[in-house]
Amino acid sequence: MTTLRICFVGDSLTNGTGDDTFLSWPGRLCAAERKRGHDLTCYNLGIRADTSTLIAARWQTECAARLPDLYEGRLVFAFGNNDTAIPEGSGEVRVPPERSIETARAILTEAKAWKPVLFIGPWPVEETKQPVSPTGPVAYRFANARVAALSEAYGALAGELGIPYLDLYEALAHDARWQEISRRGDGVHPPQEGYALVAETVVAWVGWRAWLD
Amino acid sequence: MTTLRICFVGDSLTNGTGDDTFLSWPGRLCAAERKRGHDLTCYNLGIRADTSTLIAARWQTECAARLPDLYEGRLVFAFGNNDTAIPEGSGEVRVPPERSIETARAILTEAKAWKPVLFIGPWPVEETKQPVSPTGPVAYRFANARVAALSEAYGALAGELGIPYLDLYEALAHDARWQEISRRGDGVHPPQEGYALVAETVVAWVGWRAWLD
Repeated sequence: MTTLRICFVGDSLTNGTGDDTFLSWPGRLCAAERKRGHDLTCYNLGIRADTSTLIAARWQTECAARLPDLYEGRLVFAFGNNDTAIPEGSGEVRVPPERSIETARAILTEAKAWKPVLFIGPWPVEETKQPVSPTGPVAYRFANARVAALSEAYGALAGELGIPYLDLYEALAHDARWQEISRRGDGVHPPQEGYALVAETVVAWVGWRAWLD
Repeated sequence: MTTLRICFVGDSLTNGTGDDTFLSWPGRLCAAERKRGHDLTCYNLGIRADTSTLIAARWQTECAARLPDLYEGRLVFAFGNNDTAIPEGSGEVRVPPERSIETARAILTEAKAWKPVLFIGPWPVEETKQPVSPTGPVAYRFANARVAALSEAYGALAGELGIPYLDLYEALAHDARWQEISRRGDGVHPPQEGYALVAETVVAWVGWRAWLD
């Protein structure tokens, strides 16, 4: 049995927007490991609409409050989709790729000097359902070409830093199950079956399994 | 349909320690309202072992990052049990009642000036299973007389401030279902059925219902 306290730091895709069960993928992931006998504490620190730069500003304070050194603490970062979003009426992405990568580098470098770290990349969007406006007055346009390019760059960065990287874009973009589920979502947030598929993908990921087995 | 983003600010009893489903009571509560058609965003800001004073130090920063004024945001506070805990080897509670009440007054007063607020009090502990040490090296002793006294004082404070208060101690202490479930927990954290019973109690609470119906 492994005992860990884990902070999952991300955006609405970590919080679980659109998942009527309110488990999201971190909850499903931890529940699956609990069934295998592991003792996990799940801190879901996903905030809707957060970009890499918004996460950079808060992750240290929030995680320090949750991971006292007395206990075994771990960090899972999952972001990127919102950096690639273009607000309606604007011609520019929220965070340009160069700044997104430098921000990820700063976050991951500081995180790795403190606790073990995993990094999970952005996931495929549904291009037939753009712009996305799940929350009211603000609408954003997502596109898979931008997600794919950022995911590839994040993967190269993680390799350079020696941090395990899960390329969710590659894992899901060509998966017929994901495509069917994603079409039933709002353009970026799938319904609950999408969160279950992401959890299943993480459960099977060698980077994650190395923490538990 | 009501659309709300809600921060649930508390301790391990909000995080859901011991709940193998990883939903805790805020997750169950929001899922139940989703079934009634409401659109809720659930930010679970429970941190294990947090007292009122630890919550006072962090709630504003964490909630401000999650509740931009562009969307309808709400605050649910749930704390108290850890203030009454006596660390093994110490003769003193972690936060004395007078300081606990003054801290709650400061939190609730500032919170109410910002967003609508609900306050949920501490819950009954299982006195036959003390001290409690779910997490390793630190053990604490809880006692229902201290929980009951603090809950009563919190209720009076909330009344004075005009904030709805759910007296979970009174609601659960004499409930045979709670007693049976609590005996299967670790002394303060029930198994999942306890979190379901708390969620059921909040769902039926007039203070909560007034936000949704």
